[in-house]
Amino acid sequence: VTVLVVGTGLIGTSVALALRAAGVSVWLSDADPSAVRLAADMGAGSVYSGSHPVDVAVLAVPPDVVAPTLAAAQARGQALWYTDVASVKRLPVSSAEALGCDMASYVPGHPLAGREKHGPAAARADLFLGRTWALCPSGVSADAVAAVTSLVEACGAVPVLTEPAVHDRWVALTSHAPHLVAAALGARLESAETAALDLAGQGLRDVTRIAAGETELWTQILSANADSVAAVLAEVVADLAVCASQLADGVGPKDLLERGRTGVARIPGKHGDAQPSFAVVQVVIKDQPGELARLFNAAGAAGVNIEDIRIEHSPGLPVGVAELSVRPAEAAALTSALSAGGWPARSSLFLLIVLRF
Amino acid sequence: VTVLVVGTGLIGTSVALALRAAGVSVWLSDADPSAVRLAADMGAGSVYSGSHPVDVAVLAVPPDVVAPTLAAAQARGQALWYTDVASVKRLPVSSAEALGCDMASYVPGHPLAGREKHGPAAARADLFLGRTWALCPSGVSADAVAAVTSLVEACGAVPVLTEPAVHDRWVALTSHAPHLVAAALGARLESAETAALDLAGQGLRDVTRIAAGETELWTQILSANADSVAAVLAEVVADLAVCASQLADGVGPKDLLERGRTGVARIPGKHGDAQPSFAVVQVVIKDQPGELARLFNAAGAAGVNIEDIRIEHSPGLPVGVAELSVRPAEAAALTSALSAGGWPARSSLFLLIVLRF
Repeated sequence: VTVLVVGTGLIGTSVALALRAAGVSVWLSDADPSAVRLAADMGAGSVYSGSHPVDVAVLAVPPDVVAPTLAAAQARGQALWYTDVASVKRLPVSSAEALGCDMASYVPGHPLAGREKHGPAAARADLFLGRTWALCPSGVSADAVAAVTSLVEACGAVPVLTEPAVHDRWVALTSHAPHLVAAALGARLESAETAALDLAGQGLRDVTRIAAGETELWTQILSANADSVAAVLAEVVADLAVCASQLADGVGPKDLLERGRTGVARIPGKHGDAQPSFAVVQVVIKDQPGELARLFNAAGAAGVNIEDIRIEHSPGLPVGVAELSVRPAEAAALTSALSAGGWPARSSLFLLIVLRF
Repeated sequence: VTVLVVGTGLIGTSVALALRAAGVSVWLSDADPSAVRLAADMGAGSVYSGSHPVDVAVLAVPPDVVAPTLAAAQARGQALWYTDVASVKRLPVSSAEALGCDMASYVPGHPLAGREKHGPAAARADLFLGRTWALCPSGVSADAVAAVTSLVEACGAVPVLTEPAVHDRWVALTSHAPHLVAAALGARLESAETAALDLAGQGLRDVTRIAAGETELWTQILSANADSVAAVLAEVVADLAVCASQLADGVGPKDLLERGRTGVARIPGKHGDAQPSFAVVQVVIKDQPGELARLFNAAGAAGVNIEDIRIEHSPGLPVGVAELSVRPAEAAALTSALSAGGWPARSSLFLLIVLRF
């Protein structure tokens, strides 16, 4: 199978990396030569010369560029099948129809994954692991759907078949209306006293983070989904208006808080069910050169691969806590190795074993 | 200086750890014996026997318990000076006055710091490093203000003097109203189709995260700051109502998005200016046992202390990226050590140096 990724930003390059990891031949193109070069250097694939057709082309470009990019690619016969990754689905589909694209070879798609960072350097092969990937085929050949579904699964994602209008209504709720609500909170800070902003904590940063997104891209997305977004906003406005008047009347906002908790609890886990579980071994370490090397020597000698590390380090204290993530089957070996390395026996260095699944 | 921390949850234990790191003698008490035991085991101080007075008592208890806790502590003469850490300041102050507390020895306080996790196990000595810590003294002795200010500075925080009413108005904007807005978004998910929730990404999780907080505590906080919170909510509601009707009329929400970005950009950096900056060295590593040990050996041999590590690991690919945080002055030594260790010379293992300040 050969794939062409058009647009080597965060999403496009991540798709390419995931497909490369699955053994797929990947070609890369981007209007920005430095972006495609960086993606190629990262191992995401080879720079596309334009001279040979591929099986599937992934159009990882902004929503309003999908249809013209599709039309151009189809005119040049670059691929058998096409898909895109835009956050709205009605716009690219109706635009592609208007441009007279071959709709039988185009499977509209939208991977529900992203990061705060942008560009190819932020790409990850596991960005889609266990995440949902919406596909909205309509009048598409079965071969095209099968090819794009295989691509989605090769990325580790879970395909969800839906229709463009349903997709857009769902993401209005889970992404687009939240974006505008975050913007409305951000707007309240525009004219705030500077001293008041010193009282900003992590909560405010998290609630408003997405409001820092690119205005042009988001105006495009929100305008393309205006009716669905407006409907969700109207309900949020109604709840907040009631809450504001209750507060003014001395009534506690317990009802809205409870409903909020109930709703938030329904959001599926961060990585979905397909994410591999790691065991976490916590070790209290001395804050001095060489301590981590000893720890990793002991792990390496035991043949245990550390999959991830987090260090909680308190400046001024002589110890920190290292959380070592390993495959569950290797946790016992790591524990033994660390014990054999003398950790529990040292008075200033003790071992906490915490296994989480 | 001796300090008693009453309430060894996240904040209380973090205060204790920070003070211990600064060489202060710390005593710990909590209604829950297991919480105080865990905090003591973490090195946060010694379990308080109740038989000796201290210089400063930090009341790290919920807002409506501050005043009765203060009254009881003062009746027993447990400390010369008192402070608290509650998220609202008018309520504890007026309640303490109503209970006839000695207001000359009480400096109301509120550190602007927190974590998603709760309880003593989540505490960190550096939780307050570079963060703002509001103090609202009124009719308090200069000695009390000096003692509590020293305590705040020993925790690495920046004291900001204000009045209870101003404090409450500011946190309505930066914390309390955002909490209710997050709850209103969460409430929209309560009756959403399950399939729609599969389309939830990280943005929705971040925007709604704080809505998962404890309902009782937050009802208490929001009720104690109802007037200020209602005023902010009314403005958010007005902006969103305009935006919803603009969308319905086919007008793009560019204005609100721009204002949101402008406001969000005004939020000071995550850790404030006092946070030490680390240099980050990125190394591409092979995903196999022993590779990290070699890396850390090279760093340790050069006397470089790795302050933090993040590993970006793409399953299925034979390489990952390790980000090593070190003091800026040590970045060159680490780079040399890794070069001497052969990393740039190996074809499958190359070195990217990225310095961020």
